[in-house]
Amino acid sequence: MSVMTEARIGAGAAPARTPVLSPTYEGDFVLDEHLLLESGRTLANVTLHYAVYGRLNAARDNAVLVCHALSGSALVGSWWPEIFAPGAVLSLDNDFVICVNMLGSCYGSTGPGSVDPQTGEVYGPNFPLVSIADNVRAQALLLDSLGIRRLRLVLGGSIGGMQALDWSILFPERVKRGLIIGVAPLSAMGLAMSHLQRQAIQHDPEWAGGNYLPQRPPRRGLALARQIAMLSYKSAELFDERFGRKPNRNGEDPWGLDDNGGGLIGGRFDIAGYLDHQGDVFIERFDANAYLAILRTMDTWDPLHGRKSATEIFSRIQARLSFVGISSDWLFPPETVRHFANLIRAAGVQADYREMISAHGHDAFLAEQVELVRLLQ
Amino acid sequence: MSVMTEARIGAGAAPARTPVLSPTYEGDFVLDEHLLLESGRTLANVTLHYAVYGRLNAARDNAVLVCHALSGSALVGSWWPEIFAPGAVLSLDNDFVICVNMLGSCYGSTGPGSVDPQTGEVYGPNFPLVSIADNVRAQALLLDSLGIRRLRLVLGGSIGGMQALDWSILFPERVKRGLIIGVAPLSAMGLAMSHLQRQAIQHDPEWAGGNYLPQRPPRRGLALARQIAMLSYKSAELFDERFGRKPNRNGEDPWGLDDNGGGLIGGRFDIAGYLDHQGDVFIERFDANAYLAILRTMDTWDPLHGRKSATEIFSRIQARLSFVGISSDWLFPPETVRHFANLIRAAGVQADYREMISAHGHDAFLAEQVELVRLLQ
Repeated sequence: MSVMTEARIGAGAAPARTPVLSPTYEGDFVLDEHLLLESGRTLANVTLHYAVYGRLNAARDNAVLVCHALSGSALVGSWWPEIFAPGAVLSLDNDFVICVNMLGSCYGSTGPGSVDPQTGEVYGPNFPLVSIADNVRAQALLLDSLGIRRLRLVLGGSIGGMQALDWSILFPERVKRGLIIGVAPLSAMGLAMSHLQRQAIQHDPEWAGGNYLPQRPPRRGLALARQIAMLSYKSAELFDERFGRKPNRNGEDPWGLDDNGGGLIGGRFDIAGYLDHQGDVFIERFDANAYLAILRTMDTWDPLHGRKSATEIFSRIQARLSFVGISSDWLFPPETVRHFANLIRAAGVQADYREMISAHGHDAFLAEQVELVRLLQ
Repeated sequence: MSVMTEARIGAGAAPARTPVLSPTYEGDFVLDEHLLLESGRTLANVTLHYAVYGRLNAARDNAVLVCHALSGSALVGSWWPEIFAPGAVLSLDNDFVICVNMLGSCYGSTGPGSVDPQTGEVYGPNFPLVSIADNVRAQALLLDSLGIRRLRLVLGGSIGGMQALDWSILFPERVKRGLIIGVAPLSAMGLAMSHLQRQAIQHDPEWAGGNYLPQRPPRRGLALARQIAMLSYKSAELFDERFGRKPNRNGEDPWGLDDNGGGLIGGRFDIAGYLDHQGDVFIERFDANAYLAILRTMDTWDPLHGRKSATEIFSRIQARLSFVGISSDWLFPPETVRHFANLIRAAGVQADYREMISAHGHDAFLAEQVELVRLLQ
């Protein structure tokens, strides 16, 4: 059921600051049965691309599941290396760490770029909504195949944290500890940010209603979407400190007549050069339809959606949970994360809340890994 | 020099909540000489479209200049009517109120849609950077022509406040009082928001490098730019209260299979429907190149740009200044406005700071006029 593949993905969302860890194994798991989605649709031939680090012990009680964020990959050792530092959160000597690429992604699991076996065509814009819960149920089948019944820990930041919480809700008896970082259901402002990003892609004529050819993707639209997202991942304080009102470091002059400065579009400020660079880097590593797919997965996540009460939903949880809010996060503000943690605790769950003091904004769980590890110790 | 024109502009940025006031006069003023811009370029045949309310008294000492925000117009009685309420900030019985459309705008003053007399063609993308100071110098010539030497008060919010402060710096002996609302030089986050908006327009193929035909403007790009701006004008708190995570009020289902919900683009949330509506309304009343022109005017404003010290620049001010920060404003955060006011006070200027407590974000000076008036009384 699993096929050995080479490590084919570059770094995740954050630049690695320690030597990148190589997985013990990286491969694909193909579900035997159709995956019935929450929306009512089914996905056939579902592939989960995953990586593992360390070894499963004889008692099979050392498994840890790491869930990645929007544009991350299964290679957690590449994008979250400090979590594995000696004495940090995970240990390659003692833990068996699994990370699964989200459905909808372009990093190996079934997504909009995959062929729909029912039509023989690439899914493209018809790729269905795959919810966080759908992802979690598929991941559970992978863990079954690996002989893992119970997780010592499931953890993740951002959408990764959504998965970690859904694991605790959907499979209460399989999760001992959950660590949920920088996340709560998206607020209206968060949904607004997603809406802007979605339009940036849709407005690009190269998007072609989602039916673009791989060699002609909507590069400008995806780059703008990434730039919009970068604003929500960082903080005003960090931007002021790093860029302020300085002209772009390549010598452009926002006030002058050069760089087309005589017209409507002047020389760029440094922050604009930075954002353009972030967009350029991103389009080399991510796919526009995959981005839209996972945006929708994120937007629609809300364990309280529907008719059940918070108590009905959360009281099933058996795991001990820890929530982390990030002081400068304005996509998932810390007070929202704390409130969410309190709601879950009020349902009788063991849940604590910690706050990471950082100017890095939402991204801090990737950008300041050493500080995150310190908070978690 | 002035030509009578009919009122031809609709409402400004804010919906009027009291009966809209009609100007005593609305017309054009054409500068006799070329306007030499800070950038070194010149503008010929400069037209300022302006409106006046009330009557200039015999002593000519009751003149007030109101400066409008990015997408506003000279018709201050339409977009800021509460300022004229009995006992509020301005009085039609006692004041002679002037409001001048900014250069670069599409509401009557010279802008990218005007014909460049030097080429006989529309400026389009070649419309030069017109700074806030350039605007103020042109406005001073208009006041000269009206026989107004000294202003009892100059006031404005957002870019309007930039103009009010530059008036106090450039013509210290002509300004008695200045009221500067919700503004300071744009932070890196603010410059980033502008950069995103600029790209949204530039990416629209209909923009055509700025050479679009009036009948075929870049509607989608301008609409997206406006949506990005709306995020910065409002607050997360207001969005949560008004829209939360509700589905769009027209019945779309973000979780479902309808509304193309089976694919990558689901039914909209209510906040998305609101933003789309804001974009649609805006493209009916504003021009994309004008938007780019004024964005550049706003981005480049910083009285401290250059080699002079804050003391050298601000100590010239003779006016008594009042600054207003808005508690939930994240485009011009109140602490930034307060810090800016302190910097000016440190140069020996009479400057006080007041804070407007509002969940409306930057827009509060237009959206909550009654509360603003109360703060100013």
